[in-house]
Amino acid sequence: MYKANITITLRQSILDPEGKAIEQALGSMIEGALSNVRVGKHIELFVNADSREKAHELVENACKKMLANPVMEDYTFTLEEAETVSA
Amino acid sequence: MYKANITITLRQSILDPEGKAIEQALGSMIEGALSNVRVGKHIELFVNADSREKAHELVENACKKMLANPVMEDYTFTLEEAETVSA
Repeated sequence: MYKANITITLRQSILDPEGKAIEQALGSMIEGALSNVRVGKHIELFVNADSREKAHELVENACKKMLANPVMEDYTFTLEEAETVSA
Repeated sequence: MYKANITITLRQSILDPEGKAIEQALGSMIEGALSNVRVGKHIELFVNADSREKAHELVENACKKMLANPVMEDYTFTLEEAETVSA
């Protein structure tokens, strides 16, 4: 059993209106110190696989086919071994 | 200048319908190998601060006061030194 931490971000060239909105709101709260806010998704899931290679393949597949939009988004993920689902 | 990578997740005790929906959709695509999907937010931003301590304080403040809902969500973040905003 592995736990995958997936991060999905909009590509740098794509405008991120949500990030811009957060940046403006932060700007009025904390004067000018925070900039270039970009918002993405974080997905955690458990993978039932015998080996790290198999788990990697399953998560890669899930990202490519469903979780991320390959035209507009990039994804990265890390795998860690996990004992039980509740961990 | 520092770059902050912030991860905001729903607390374990809070139901995550978005994660459940993704889990079902993944289940019909990749037979049963992926479970316990939880969805959160990933926020990247640049911090203009003289020291790591100051940057930490600014990001902590932003998370607490605006980015995360302290009742339902947990947040973690990492800071890395960055040369320019475009990095």
